[in-house]
Amino acid sequence: MERRRVGVLGATGTVGQRFIQMLERHPWFEVAWLAASDRSTGKRYADACAWKLDTPMPRAVADMVLQPNVPPVDDSSLPRIIFAALDAEIARELEPHFAGAGCAVISNSSAFRMTRDVPLVLPEVNEAHLPLLETQATRKNGGGYIVTNANCSAIGLVLALKPLETLFGIESLFVSTMQAVSGAGYPGVPSLDILGNVVPFIRNEEEKLQEEVGKMLGRYTGSEIELLPARISAHCNRVAVVDGHTECVSVKLRTPATREQILAAWQSFQPLDGRALPSAPDHPVMYNDMPDRPQPRLDVKNGNGMSTTVGRLRPCTLLDWKFVLLSHNTVRGAAGAAVLNAEVLARLGKLPKEAA
Amino acid sequence: MERRRVGVLGATGTVGQRFIQMLERHPWFEVAWLAASDRSTGKRYADACAWKLDTPMPRAVADMVLQPNVPPVDDSSLPRIIFAALDAEIARELEPHFAGAGCAVISNSSAFRMTRDVPLVLPEVNEAHLPLLETQATRKNGGGYIVTNANCSAIGLVLALKPLETLFGIESLFVSTMQAVSGAGYPGVPSLDILGNVVPFIRNEEEKLQEEVGKMLGRYTGSEIELLPARISAHCNRVAVVDGHTECVSVKLRTPATREQILAAWQSFQPLDGRALPSAPDHPVMYNDMPDRPQPRLDVKNGNGMSTTVGRLRPCTLLDWKFVLLSHNTVRGAAGAAVLNAEVLARLGKLPKEAA
Amino acid sequence: MERRRVGVLGATGTVGQRFIQMLERHPWFEVAWLAASDRSTGKRYADACAWKLDTPMPRAVADMVLQPNVPPVDDSSLPRIIFAALDAEIARELEPHFAGAGCAVISNSSAFRMTRDVPLVLPEVNEAHLPLLETQATRKNGGGYIVTNANCSAIGLVLALKPLETLFGIESLFVSTMQAVSGAGYPGVPSLDILGNVVPFIRNEEEKLQEEVGKMLGRYTGSEIELLPARISAHCNRVAVVDGHTECVSVKLRTPATREQILAAWQSFQPLDGRALPSAPDHPVMYNDMPDRPQPRLDVKNGNGMSTTVGRLRPCTLLDWKFVLLSHNTVRGAAGAAVLNAEVLARLGKLPKEAA
Amino acid sequence: MERRRVGVLGATGTVGQRFIQMLERHPWFEVAWLAASDRSTGKRYADACAWKLDTPMPRAVADMVLQPNVPPVDDSSLPRIIFAALDAEIARELEPHFAGAGCAVISNSSAFRMTRDVPLVLPEVNEAHLPLLETQATRKNGGGYIVTNANCSAIGLVLALKPLETLFGIESLFVSTMQAVSGAGYPGVPSLDILGNVVPFIRNEEEKLQEEVGKMLGRYTGSEIELLPARISAHCNRVAVVDGHTECVSVKLRTPATREQILAAWQSFQPLDGRALPSAPDHPVMYNDMPDRPQPRLDVKNGNGMSTTVGRLRPCTLLDWKFVLLSHNTVRGAAGAAVLNAEVLARLGKLPKEAA
Repeated sequence: MERRRVGVLGATGTVGQRFIQMLERHPWFEVAWLAASDRSTGKRYADACAWKLDTPMPRAVADMVLQPNVPPVDDSSLPRIIFAALDAEIARELEPHFAGAGCAVISNSSAFRMTRDVPLVLPEVNEAHLPLLETQATRKNGGGYIVTNANCSAIGLVLALKPLETLFGIESLFVSTMQAVSGAGYPGVPSLDILGNVVPFIRNEEEKLQEEVGKMLGRYTGSEIELLPARISAHCNRVAVVDGHTECVSVKLRTPATREQILAAWQSFQPLDGRALPSAPDHPVMYNDMPDRPQPRLDVKNGNGMSTTVGRLRPCTLLDWKFVLLSHNTVRGAAGAAVLNAEVLARLGKLPKEAA
Repeated sequence: MERRRVGVLGATGTVGQRFIQMLERHPWFEVAWLAASDRSTGKRYADACAWKLDTPMPRAVADMVLQPNVPPVDDSSLPRIIFAALDAEIARELEPHFAGAGCAVISNSSAFRMTRDVPLVLPEVNEAHLPLLETQATRKNGGGYIVTNANCSAIGLVLALKPLETLFGIESLFVSTMQAVSGAGYPGVPSLDILGNVVPFIRNEEEKLQEEVGKMLGRYTGSEIELLPARISAHCNRVAVVDGHTECVSVKLRTPATREQILAAWQSFQPLDGRALPSAPDHPVMYNDMPDRPQPRLDVKNGNGMSTTVGRLRPCTLLDWKFVLLSHNTVRGAAGAAVLNAEVLARLGKLPKEAA
Repeated sequence: MERRRVGVLGATGTVGQRFIQMLERHPWFEVAWLAASDRSTGKRYADACAWKLDTPMPRAVADMVLQPNVPPVDDSSLPRIIFAALDAEIARELEPHFAGAGCAVISNSSAFRMTRDVPLVLPEVNEAHLPLLETQATRKNGGGYIVTNANCSAIGLVLALKPLETLFGIESLFVSTMQAVSGAGYPGVPSLDILGNVVPFIRNEEEKLQEEVGKMLGRYTGSEIELLPARISAHCNRVAVVDGHTECVSVKLRTPATREQILAAWQSFQPLDGRALPSAPDHPVMYNDMPDRPQPRLDVKNGNGMSTTVGRLRPCTLLDWKFVLLSHNTVRGAAGAAVLNAEVLARLGKLPKEAA
Repeated sequence: MERRRVGVLGATGTVGQRFIQMLERHPWFEVAWLAASDRSTGKRYADACAWKLDTPMPRAVADMVLQPNVPPVDDSSLPRIIFAALDAEIARELEPHFAGAGCAVISNSSAFRMTRDVPLVLPEVNEAHLPLLETQATRKNGGGYIVTNANCSAIGLVLALKPLETLFGIESLFVSTMQAVSGAGYPGVPSLDILGNVVPFIRNEEEKLQEEVGKMLGRYTGSEIELLPARISAHCNRVAVVDGHTECVSVKLRTPATREQILAAWQSFQPLDGRALPSAPDHPVMYNDMPDRPQPRLDVKNGNGMSTTVGRLRPCTLLDWKFVLLSHNTVRGAAGAAVLNAEVLARLGKLPKEAA
């Protein structure tokens, strides 16, 4: 099977690097086009990028020349599958141009996540929302579209909640996060702010988490997404961890559930109808029954960074149940989520054809 | 004014060291007697103690010889004021011996905190509980008694809650902590467990926090403590911070309160009827209105480590209000709380006289 | 090819865990026997071991029952290849028993490293020292023997020095280390000692580093090892890193060498005569020419943790050349070094046969 | 005694903040004028400054309006004592303007440290170099001048070396540093670069350290500074510490010295001829004889951050002696060094008079 050519917007950033790392040996996609902001345009990727991952930069990209973050006038060489890792303000301006140029824009940005006709998708959770993209103007004209994945703090949480919502219904939710610094990109969090410290604030994060969970767990009516009618309260904190968001969760269910039923719900969570996708983990939710887990240092790589690890399920004196979860914020919480979205779109035959 | 002689049980541990540091220049008390476990008994303090504070060991204690952790047979030299920094199991056995020997045992241990006739006191919050100590058997016989302070994670929280409880009533409470490693003593938390990591579990901590808040905010009926009738749910986590517990709180009040009313409640919180105690901070609760505060590195020393710093007051979608607080866990949360208890007992004339 | 059965002494410790991790899919060896100290004996491995690696405990070992750290009376089930990860004092007592019972004891302990008839081996560096083991008493009687690998701080350094010693000769050496906490085992370094801190002392480490480098780079005369006649001065420090020892090196050569010659020496370093061993990296020494490398977080996994990464080669105003190196202290610096020793012994046909 | 009005250039940066903190209750100086870069000019200090110290911002400065980093046209309000905490390139341009306007520029920048007619001074070490400032052109015309202090990594080292140089002579020196992140300012070192990591490179740092030590320990001939004729080799590293540079030193002396002689040299080091300066510590060099000291977390505040703590004196196999030192990099290594320079200039009557 021939690999489809893909492009990466914002290729030199923390998430851009993860895209390149995760796609290095991808069976379906091949990185063929890289773009970055003006000050990097025209440089070799290896010269422009401060590579911060613990595996070497793939040789195939080191010599690629960075393109501008806009569709080229002659777009024949532009891949029709674009992974976008741009800051929100920039994404708001640029992503529509790529959709307008006929590309499937698989975006990790927050710019359009809550837009009415843009699906906010995690394949294991709400693949059913994907038809929403057909209502986008560019798509209706036979062109491209934008599909988004959620904020890194929302993704791991939604994976753990989905089987509970399906079986018992979620009425309300309290979540307190301890988030890794890689979520803020590079240079991101200054070391003076986080060494031996906690910063109990991440701009807009609580708002994003609260609304994105509601959209992802919402219902597609055929024309729009009805948000999940649950009250969600988030406290978001930054801690001195490189990769891996840990979240303390209390949840109130609509139907009472026993501990065994909840554990069974997680264990039997086999979404995607058994259709294997290259980046989908065997177990989207893994329960660790040791008393002090999950922990970022020990569990963040579970399922190649694509599984949510859950632990410490116990009764909550205030709502019904409490637990802790951990999710890799730049793999499952960013680049991996987008790659999985592209994979499910490929399976469904919804990726645009290459320009002739 | 002559300083009263005091003793310290568990003098070589993390909290024992804080006692010695905080009492170095205390106007009312003078460390005159140090005790430690068997393997240290008979050694010079400087030889037995791995001093881990960032101020030098006071010279006055360096040459003191460590005594056994039991009342001496000839107790004429035993101070009648004993600060106890023992592990719970050991405290359960040894503290009653010192009370039996006529001492006021000002204990930081969890052993007797929830015992029916033992006050669990924070002077600014529930000085009114102190008469409970008169019901202890040893005290009724004219002898000593045990007074306790709460767990380090409960103390800072109760300071912030007290003015809210007084003015508006607290109906339910959610708290998620990010606790410093010094709370676990020395050697305590292995570095392999916490470097670049979060441990979402501290043994018995959630239980202690939940029940101790209820007792401290409870009502003394004249014969016993009625627990606060509020539902409290705690998530306790260990993070890579040396000193300072950060806590995310959501609270539901019995009477609605505006943001201004809550801020005013904290600002006007002037307990102790204006009677200054040497270790009492001018402002037990300090509100920081910057968006990303409090932070351990920047705020833990507020009020010489005796103030709770609060920030980020904002509405909660689930309960009424959310905020973040920070408290120094080995100063206000341990040694400083006990010293303050001794100070208020001194003011009330309840400290035993020296043996003749 | 059938896999040889091997045993692990000290199987629950930090290095013991690395042995088990590295041997999980080893083509030649299979973990068949695990031993630990008295308090763990008789327990399932999964119950006795606080697994601290970021990959899951291999299922094959989880249910194994831990044996005592001594050769069984009926030793028919005892593997004849024993990897030993014991503390020095215990190793000094126990390892000879296993050699006496006919085992090849592949030891990571410091107990016998400097013993006259015990080879201190790193295959890429001094495989030629291995015949020394034939002079051991137990071996002469047709029985087992002890082979050791060096201290974690010496191994990475010796890899970088070997090609320089071969081509130019080493006259003197200055090395200042910044060592990871995993080198101290578990619980090891208390977090209060290392969070936001440096500890400029590791007991016996400077002495070990200085003498072991001299022995490894020494010459086997046919009957003994002549130490390298170089003066070596080490400063050893502990820093807040989980895995990976960083070392600053200044070296004086016997024959002048240019920068290009030194880089070429490292690049062309192809030891082991091209005979591939399963755990030997393709490049034992990798040079990174970025100005701020190597770094533990980015480079420690090079060569699956078996390569030394070198960078910042530049003139030294005092000796001849300065550089920085990084080596994974529990992989190449401990378990991996021992596994490689076993592999080279296997190739040479020097591993004892199984008991009939 | 009336306090002299002083100004601070670069007042919002990390070192600028330390100036303000250290001058808050200074007996001789009072902060009266603050300047910062263009984007802050005109703002209240409290609004423009991300205060990152663990004591509150002094109220007296919070409402001051930030001035441009240039002498005002009407300079009647400009203090004649200017503490400068500017980046080197900016300092190179701006500091001469202030000297030209008649100010004593007490600079922490590297811009003019090695300039022929600019003293590089640490009062306890080379107060004798101060007359050099009389040779500056602006000074000869009866105007201002520039006096500098050294790089943070050189200052603590020179304090420890000075008594050795005086008594025994220093022939050569090896130093390997482990430097705190506060030395890089704010935002400075990204957390992704230093959490759980070591960066073995700080731009230009090794060069600065090597040459500045030579100038500070050099001899003033009456017209210029003769550099110390010693060979110095430095390895500079960044580690995950907030404040405090730790340095491993090996030194070769011109005259042999015993351990006792060296310890005595440090202990009897009483510079400044007994003239107390407000910021001078009682003991510029403090020796800690515990085996694992100094450590940043425990020792950085010694002498209010103005003492160098030394430990681990032991023979060096390569040079003569090895030891470890620790110095607070933003107190003694930056703002405190400049304040001390101003104090000694005040004592000598060399500070310019206020404009009439």
